[in-house]
Amino acid sequence: MELRLTKSGVCVEGFAAAGVKEGKYGVALIASDRVCDCAGVFTTNNVKAAPVLVTRKMIKNGIQAVVANSGNANACVPEGAVDANHMRGITAKALGVSKNNVGVASTGIIGRRMNMPAVEKLIKKASENMSSSPDASIRAAKAIMTTDTRLKQVSVKYGGVEVGGMAKGAGMIAPNMATMLCFITTNADLEISVLQKALKRSVDDSFNMMVVDGDMSTNDMVLLLSSRRVKCGMKVFQRLLDYVTAGLARKIVEDGEGATKFIEVNVVGAKTKKDARTGAKAIASSLMVKTMVYGENPNWGRIMQSLGQVVAFKFNKTDIILSSGSMKAFAVRRGIGGNLDKLRSILENKNIKITVNLHSGGENATSWGCDITPEYVNLNAGYS
Amino acid sequence: MELRLTKSGVCVEGFAAAGVKEGKYGVALIASDRVCDCAGVFTTNNVKAAPVLVTRKMIKNGIQAVVANSGNANACVPEGAVDANHMRGITAKALGVSKNNVGVASTGIIGRRMNMPAVEKLIKKASENMSSSPDASIRAAKAIMTTDTRLKQVSVKYGGVEVGGMAKGAGMIAPNMATMLCFITTNADLEISVLQKALKRSVDDSFNMMVVDGDMSTNDMVLLLSSRRVKCGMKVFQRLLDYVTAGLARKIVEDGEGATKFIEVNVVGAKTKKDARTGAKAIASSLMVKTMVYGENPNWGRIMQSLGQVVAFKFNKTDIILSSGSMKAFAVRRGIGGNLDKLRSILENKNIKITVNLHSGGENATSWGCDITPEYVNLNAGYS
Repeated sequence: MELRLTKSGVCVEGFAAAGVKEGKYGVALIASDRVCDCAGVFTTNNVKAAPVLVTRKMIKNGIQAVVANSGNANACVPEGAVDANHMRGITAKALGVSKNNVGVASTGIIGRRMNMPAVEKLIKKASENMSSSPDASIRAAKAIMTTDTRLKQVSVKYGGVEVGGMAKGAGMIAPNMATMLCFITTNADLEISVLQKALKRSVDDSFNMMVVDGDMSTNDMVLLLSSRRVKCGMKVFQRLLDYVTAGLARKIVEDGEGATKFIEVNVVGAKTKKDARTGAKAIASSLMVKTMVYGENPNWGRIMQSLGQVVAFKFNKTDIILSSGSMKAFAVRRGIGGNLDKLRSILENKNIKITVNLHSGGENATSWGCDITPEYVNLNAGYS
Repeated sequence: MELRLTKSGVCVEGFAAAGVKEGKYGVALIASDRVCDCAGVFTTNNVKAAPVLVTRKMIKNGIQAVVANSGNANACVPEGAVDANHMRGITAKALGVSKNNVGVASTGIIGRRMNMPAVEKLIKKASENMSSSPDASIRAAKAIMTTDTRLKQVSVKYGGVEVGGMAKGAGMIAPNMATMLCFITTNADLEISVLQKALKRSVDDSFNMMVVDGDMSTNDMVLLLSSRRVKCGMKVFQRLLDYVTAGLARKIVEDGEGATKFIEVNVVGAKTKKDARTGAKAIASSLMVKTMVYGENPNWGRIMQSLGQVVAFKFNKTDIILSSGSMKAFAVRRGIGGNLDKLRSILENKNIKITVNLHSGGENATSWGCDITPEYVNLNAGYS
């Protein structure tokens, strides 16, 4: 199956977008020419921001437009629900759609009330610039960036079926898709129950396997809007969707706050899928492993140690392989340590792959992380 | 009950100690004039260093001497058990005790074979300098320091009952007493089952509630040796033991690698003990909270968010109080945010207390942590 990359972003067939940013706030709008079926995955944090609570409840109505703002999370404030619904109302009026079909999302600082006049002005301005051009999708994605340093969009096509996504998120990613907004659009005609199942599965293998620093946000949201124009098989759709979410997840991790290196962790040969998943995430999450990679120091005991916190395994059956591009070396082979100089030279690269083979089964999993740097600490100390 | 601080360290009645450090290795010896009953708590990491496996198995024999080395963890090497037992044999011979009654512990780098000639030389040298003076305990504690910058000893007395402890540990502390060695001695005459229960309980409320960076070591070990000389009630003993373990835990956290601030987190008014414990630890563990404290930035949303990852609570019933010494202010009072300037001035201090009152029950817990700094990252990037 040959899928084709496109430049559409979320502006796939039947969708338009706009984005504006002024001062501390930014607003993105995504709208469809009809009411879409909508699947959603939301933060599992017990503290949920108002827009999460509001949107989670209304997506069953179907969605025709989404309004998202950066600059304020609209979380942990008494007026949260009022302001979130107010944003929906302003958007509905500006775009001429029903308020019942407007979803809302926010990202930014927690615990301060939204500056509603500023947001209202931006929504109106954005609504006057709706366009279905690829540039409009880029403007929308840029409008909701906060500490992001890079734009994150992936869109693909197979036959007439299109799937396009944008995401926002850099720091605070993990253990479950933290401080992340992701909007995915498609013209694939699939039942809502199928969309929901496909989205959950796709998020589990992408955003839920990425790790930046172990905190989960109050505002995470992934929405999948389908205008149901083009017939599409489940398998093809899952493939397209997975391509988009995995691509966005990778872009988010690569944009980890203050990160200098990208880390891919593969745990293979595990007895259970759970062992593979938790093991890969534990390694990618470990501060000891992150500082090891930052320091280009092949202290592989830290990999063993972080894995050992969550998975029972036989050390003397285990391989650890470090690789980067075509360079590759055993850090540990069946429990015996390898040549440190060779490992050190691999760690000098920017993209580091850590593969742990437990030789005890057939289950595999991949997690993505990045190193931690003094810059990360400074960035997060200063943010407010 | 008035307990009295002493200077004995582990050299309580009937115990002697010694410590030497040369080059990369250090050795500490602790010995009793008789075989002691011994309780132990060991790492729960699935990867356990050889000395952990060896000592865990032999403590039922009773312990008369403990040998501990710094510089090498003796973990993840095929010769681990042989070398650990060899250390026991050398120590037994040097001190004239039975090898069956010698415990062994190690701390340092993982995955490299011990330099046994160096260790043997140090054990012999230490054995010639055994002394029951407070200085001997200090020398022993210093000999097993690695990235520690401060000596960690606490000893107390009540009537004729003495409890004394030393600990080693700085980085990599948490979620369960990571990279930490702790040796506690006492003359209290209590059954081994009582000692074990008291130790488990004391460790749960002290070392298991401290947080530096979320990694758990392969080598953690807490041993409690009792020479059973003096009759003692269970309650009194628990009190003395808790004083020693809490004091050592605090010293370890204060010595967090590269830390500049000490953080105490109290979760009070929780529905269950589990909520209180996991909530306090989640807050003290959060990188977002740690960088917030480092940056002296009262972004209390991060406290809410980290708590929300593990505990379900009502935001509008919740108080968050920041304090330091006599300074105190509400960051949040029943869900409403407080004055940021006042909070900022509290965060300028070195000792920060975060209290979260959930107003939903009577359970409380305390966790200790420290900030994370660029220095921490550099220290751990360079270590090997």
